[in-house]
Amino acid sequence: MNAVAQEAPSYELVVEREMNIPRDKLYRCWTEPELLKEWFCPKPWTVARAELDVRAGGSSLIVMRNPEGEEFPNPGVYLEVVPNERIVSTDAYTSAWVPSERPFMTAIVTFEDLGGGKTRYTARARHWSEEHRTAHEAMGFHEGWGKATDQLEELAQTL
Amino acid sequence: MNAVAQEAPSYELVVEREMNIPRDKLYRCWTEPELLKEWFCPKPWTVARAELDVRAGGSSLIVMRNPEGEEFPNPGVYLEVVPNERIVSTDAYTSAWVPSERPFMTAIVTFEDLGGGKTRYTARARHWSEEHRTAHEAMGFHEGWGKATDQLEELAQTL
Repeated sequence: MNAVAQEAPSYELVVEREMNIPRDKLYRCWTEPELLKEWFCPKPWTVARAELDVRAGGSSLIVMRNPEGEEFPNPGVYLEVVPNERIVSTDAYTSAWVPSERPFMTAIVTFEDLGGGKTRYTARARHWSEEHRTAHEAMGFHEGWGKATDQLEELAQTL
Repeated sequence: MNAVAQEAPSYELVVEREMNIPRDKLYRCWTEPELLKEWFCPKPWTVARAELDVRAGGSSLIVMRNPEGEEFPNPGVYLEVVPNERIVSTDAYTSAWVPSERPFMTAIVTFEDLGGGKTRYTARARHWSEEHRTAHEAMGFHEGWGKATDQLEELAQTL
C-alpha cells in the first residue's frame, strides 16, 4: 500500500509480482495494441480489438471476446501516463470527458525498477464502493488478473 | 454542445456567456486561489479556503462556508489543464487517484477567444446519471452557477 492509498478507503484489489524482466518491456506490453492483445484476456478469452491512445486524456477501447465469439467492449480513458513507470486509466469516462454509464474502477499499474533487469509489477483496481470491490472479487478478480499476469510475464520474456 | 457531448448522453448542465473580457483574466480567476475565493461561491456564501494544484492530476480543495459559518469541503482532482483555454476537474477523486465517496460531476470550463478582447465562457457540469443531473438542477444549479458567473465577470473586469 502506498501513502495515498492509506489516506482514504480506496476499495482496492491488487496483483503484485516481482519479475525478471526490465520494466520497459512490460510497459510495451501494456501500450502496444498488438502486444496487449496477446496477453490481456485470460485464455480461452481473447482480445478482438485494442485501440490505445496512450496519453493523459486519451481513449482506450479493448474489446474482449469469449470462447462463444461474443464481444464485450471496454472503453476507458487514460488519466496519467509516465512512460515505463506508471499507467492510470478508468472506465468512468468513455472518452475525454464523457461520463460512462457505469463507473466501476480505476486501474493503476506501476513498474518499479528493482535494478539488475528486475521489476516490481503492481496492478491495482480501485473501486468507488465496497460493494463494487466485493463484486469484482466475486467475479474472479484474483484468478483472472493472475492468469493475465502470467500471460504478460510469458510474453514480455520473449521481447 | 461540442462534438464529444453529442456522442453519448453526458447528463449535462451548462452556463454559457460571452464576456467583454480577455480569456487570460478569466483563467486567472479560476486558478489563483486569492481570486477564486472572491467569486466562486454565490454570496452570502463564501470560500473559506482554496488550495489549487492546477495541473492534470493535481488536487483542489475548496471549502465553502454558509452564512451560519458551517463549512463544506469540496475536494477534487484536475483531469486536464490547458492554460487560458480549458480546465477539467472532477469530484470522483479526492486526490490522484483516490476514489471519492460520492462521484457526482465533472466540470469542464472553456475560455474561447472571440477576438477583440472578448471571450465565450462555458462552464459545463457533467453527471454520471440523469438522476444526478436532475438533482443538481433542483439544488439550484442555474441560479447558483449564474450568480457565481456574475461575480466572476465583475471580478475579472477589475484585473
